[in-house]
Amino acid sequence: MHILVVYDITEDHVRNKVAEVLRSYGLARVQKSAYIGRLPPAYVKELAERLARAVRGANADIIILKIDRRTLETMIRIGPPPPSGRGPALH
Amino acid sequence: MHILVVYDITEDHVRNKVAEVLRSYGLARVQKSAYIGRLPPAYVKELAERLARAVRGANADIIILKIDRRTLETMIRIGPPPPSGRGPALH
Repeated sequence: MHILVVYDITEDHVRNKVAEVLRSYGLARVQKSAYIGRLPPAYVKELAERLARAVRGANADIIILKIDRRTLETMIRIGPPPPSGRGPALH
Repeated sequence: MHILVVYDITEDHVRNKVAEVLRSYGLARVQKSAYIGRLPPAYVKELAERLARAVRGANADIIILKIDRRTLETMIRIGPPPPSGRGPALH
């Protein structure tokens, strides 16, 4: 399963903690506040709980979306070239 | 079809222009730089071209993802309560 995680987090140290957690689960940054990666379904709940602990009491909003291969393959990227040519890009 | 648009845009006026375009296509803001909405497939290309024009020459990175109902229904939200109770939220 692929997941996309996007977040709005005010405090720098909380944002850095979240980014660290996401990297530790093997997700790759695709934008400043957006990560994509592959994760076995059983780990998605564990990741969500780790993230909830990391932002407890902070001004934070995290969205985790389970996305399928078709969503990734039809992704449209406007701006920088996609990291691995994944999905059409408009410049 | 549902779409999610997430973006990193440096210049305020460009970011405002993009938000305006997204709202004009009926998308709703779910985070500072993330919008979700329903759009007929034929309009997704048109939206992408309008966004490409809006950010031409700017330091901008926009990702458009076509997401299905299951992705929306299994969305996990950490932080603020989901706008319409859509998807489980961890606090």
